[in-house]
Amino acid sequence: MLPLKDRGLLIVISGPSGVGKGTVCSYLRLEHPELAFSISATTRPRRNSEVDGENYFFMSREEFMVRRENGDFLEWAEVYGNLYGTPRWAVEATLARGQDVVLEIDIQGALKVKEIFPEGVFIFLLPPSKDELEKRIKGRAQDSPDTIRYRLSCVDQELAVINEYQYAIVNGQVEEAASEIKAIISAEKCRISRYKELEYWKGGNTCD
Amino acid sequence: MLPLKDRGLLIVISGPSGVGKGTVCSYLRLEHPELAFSISATTRPRRNSEVDGENYFFMSREEFMVRRENGDFLEWAEVYGNLYGTPRWAVEATLARGQDVVLEIDIQGALKVKEIFPEGVFIFLLPPSKDELEKRIKGRAQDSPDTIRYRLSCVDQELAVINEYQYAIVNGQVEEAASEIKAIISAEKCRISRYKELEYWKGGNTCD
Repeated sequence: MLPLKDRGLLIVISGPSGVGKGTVCSYLRLEHPELAFSISATTRPRRNSEVDGENYFFMSREEFMVRRENGDFLEWAEVYGNLYGTPRWAVEATLARGQDVVLEIDIQGALKVKEIFPEGVFIFLLPPSKDELEKRIKGRAQDSPDTIRYRLSCVDQELAVINEYQYAIVNGQVEEAASEIKAIISAEKCRISRYKELEYWKGGNTCD
Repeated sequence: MLPLKDRGLLIVISGPSGVGKGTVCSYLRLEHPELAFSISATTRPRRNSEVDGENYFFMSREEFMVRRENGDFLEWAEVYGNLYGTPRWAVEATLARGQDVVLEIDIQGALKVKEIFPEGVFIFLLPPSKDELEKRIKGRAQDSPDTIRYRLSCVDQELAVINEYQYAIVNGQVEEAASEIKAIISAEKCRISRYKELEYWKGGNTCD
């Protein structure tokens, strides 16, 4: 076989809130067990149903801060007093084993990841239309009217950074979006820039 | 639906002689009738079994020369006294209809096409190994010993231009190679650079 790079790919799936990142990623997780999914680190207390290293990497605020100082997170954020981060060490270990890692993340987080990890594959999920996105944001039972208003006010600004991504997928039907993501992963593995140096054609024969 | 560019893609499938371009393209043609295949223009006489505009665009040497002067060919070459060319007008008409066009072509031809048509998707077919390529070149009954020797002497030089392409595919199994080409086509349609200007998010809302 040809010496393809044996590292996995980091696939960053991002987009405005309400676009359906979670639904697409849940579907991918079910249909494509060969993909690994990035597990966040958090300082929030573990719930009884949760397993450390499976749902989250749980850690004390002190440990989180030390790791943050060490540059151990691809990105981090504070939400309602708890710290969350994408643990670089876990992502790197999986990629080194040759497995692809999917990271589901909001736009701000994705842009931070891109600074540290530009070789990732950055995919922007788009709503079929702005109206449909509004409908989805309003339809999420868990959000307060204030949160909904805030989210809606962010949409234009969120969509404006799409050029920072390499790919955009319209999330109309989840199956189609997932199959486009799979096609992107396959195609990226064929990109010339991802091939290792191909030793076998370093010859000096001429042909004219 | 999102305003994706409605033009088709030009998919250039190329690689060293003996790598199996023809086999892969025949398979694609059977399995993916939605793809169009570029038809060459030629000055060689039509055989009885051949249909103009289906196997080739047959034309006189005079017509070919005039069209060549007009820049009507993406590339052209003379082979055993006959002229062959890729008719830009036919490719453009198909792309404008929104259909993807596959162009199977040798490496020299592909590099010429790239100069005129850099927005094409350039795919390099690789042999599983250099030994396997030698075996395939020698196994082709139609070639004389001189042709075989010449082809083998070209391999290193042909492989050296792989960086001019965007993708490389190892042609081990034809079904796998074809499915990777399909994935590349799907992925390319999701590339940000191929989206039309997305009017609907040109808003001025702020979000902080």
